[in-house]
Amino acid sequence: MPERVYLNDVGPRDGLQNQPKHLSVEERLELIEALRAAGLEQIEIGAFVSPKAVPAMAGSDQIAHALKHGEASYSALIPNRRGYDLATAAGVKTVAMVVYGSDAMAEKNVGMSSAEAEAATLDMLLQSKSDGIEVIATIAVAFVCPFAGPTDPAIVHGLAQRCLAAGAARVVIADTIGAANPAQVTALMEGLVEDNGADKLACHFHDTRALGMANVYAALQAGIRHFDASIGGLGGCPFAPGASGNIATEDAAMMLQSIGYDTGIDLNKLLAASDLAERLTGTAPGGRSKPWLGPYLDKGQVI
Amino acid sequence: MPERVYLNDVGPRDGLQNQPKHLSVEERLELIEALRAAGLEQIEIGAFVSPKAVPAMAGSDQIAHALKHGEASYSALIPNRRGYDLATAAGVKTVAMVVYGSDAMAEKNVGMSSAEAEAATLDMLLQSKSDGIEVIATIAVAFVCPFAGPTDPAIVHGLAQRCLAAGAARVVIADTIGAANPAQVTALMEGLVEDNGADKLACHFHDTRALGMANVYAALQAGIRHFDASIGGLGGCPFAPGASGNIATEDAAMMLQSIGYDTGIDLNKLLAASDLAERLTGTAPGGRSKPWLGPYLDKGQVI
Repeated sequence: MPERVYLNDVGPRDGLQNQPKHLSVEERLELIEALRAAGLEQIEIGAFVSPKAVPAMAGSDQIAHALKHGEASYSALIPNRRGYDLATAAGVKTVAMVVYGSDAMAEKNVGMSSAEAEAATLDMLLQSKSDGIEVIATIAVAFVCPFAGPTDPAIVHGLAQRCLAAGAARVVIADTIGAANPAQVTALMEGLVEDNGADKLACHFHDTRALGMANVYAALQAGIRHFDASIGGLGGCPFAPGASGNIATEDAAMMLQSIGYDTGIDLNKLLAASDLAERLTGTAPGGRSKPWLGPYLDKGQVI
Repeated sequence: MPERVYLNDVGPRDGLQNQPKHLSVEERLELIEALRAAGLEQIEIGAFVSPKAVPAMAGSDQIAHALKHGEASYSALIPNRRGYDLATAAGVKTVAMVVYGSDAMAEKNVGMSSAEAEAATLDMLLQSKSDGIEVIATIAVAFVCPFAGPTDPAIVHGLAQRCLAAGAARVVIADTIGAANPAQVTALMEGLVEDNGADKLACHFHDTRALGMANVYAALQAGIRHFDASIGGLGGCPFAPGASGNIATEDAAMMLQSIGYDTGIDLNKLLAASDLAERLTGTAPGGRSKPWLGPYLDKGQVI
């Protein structure tokens, strides 16, 4: 039996939030359904944030209401208790919060210190227990911060342990600007896996410096089996200079299946979802494997 | 002391041979000089092939004559004894020949069987000994052939051992179409290193499926310290459907230096060489790390 690796498609949130063109609720639902049809079981569907600050995420409540929670893990980003209340009222069962490897990034992103952002997350973790809600904690700039430089691994270790101890369903180690190298990924993730096991750890990489897939491979070697990815490579961080798109779900799925992992994903349907992302946004770059992968699959060839 | 990793820039040959625009001898020399200025000590400068078949490589003799052999390892591709005679007459001290992991690719590329191409290479290896000429043997389609499917590792093992036994200065294991995955790279290269040591082995990857840097990282882990790369990501194989450019020298150098290896390369000057490749060809994509790397280095930040 091939070993399972899980991809969480963050395209409908992380991917779309920063697009010049704002998709309608119907278009966003169409993209989510295309991802579901391709076999994605974890999808970040939207964000319960101020529509003034992030207009692309307006209507996330309508999206959450329209989906059948339980048939897949549909998560939504929340910044605080108000977001939590709105998300859970709309039916969301899994919320994602962000903690920070540097004060500089926390300040730029949410106008808080790293400790304040962590306190907000720990507060929601406490609340969520009695509500039966899952909380995913993402550690932003876990490797390098564009403002503060390299992140001390001890900071990441501490954040991960405190979030897991407080009941986080998963802690996502994020290379927010795509500046990590694979040796650094192996070193940090091996330490985190040693302390916490691999089950509740995930990685989130950007392909800014061509190292997205190398970093996924390095994390795999450290035992990580959960990864964020974004359909069509949609993404980028508005507050992180130089950050380009997330790793493309099609690139990650192709590599994983090529190595022999089971991702539960139908690559042909995933390429259709990527085509849809490109068509809807007009700016999704498409996975770099796409020009090659499509014709190859058309011929019925094994990867 | 950081460990040394060696990059062989194949841009002036592998990169340029298939460009729609043919550069002048002067332009090709300008590119080679820019690579030397950036610290590259191994450069594939041209090919001694029929100018009718590969017009972009016409004048390689003038290029070889203009260079000071010995200050760097300037190699040239040759297909046969005639190419060998022309190259060595022009001053070339290192020739590169291609052997094939499949008959189908050998047939498409040079109209020979794999055994015939190997015999031609072994013949030149014999000749080169008395002439004091180095021969590099590249094993094309060492992982997957677009016509014959996956390549049996035993074929690659056999080719590598016979070429090394015959005195090859280096055997380059080439993923000609960019279809290898990192687990496959680790497996094949670990076996080859076990049998032959790492010193005379190199890898040649394409970035067709976004796995170029992942495959370099996988080969590094198997002990490989020599890699082909192409400035600005120039390249592609005219006979291999779906093959996009070689890995970009700037991406490889950036990753290696970021991990902590010594490449002997000045990244700022390498970016200048990449800019030159883009300007001269009009089609070089530029390394994917370029948009990020340039501004970062400008600020004097460590990678």
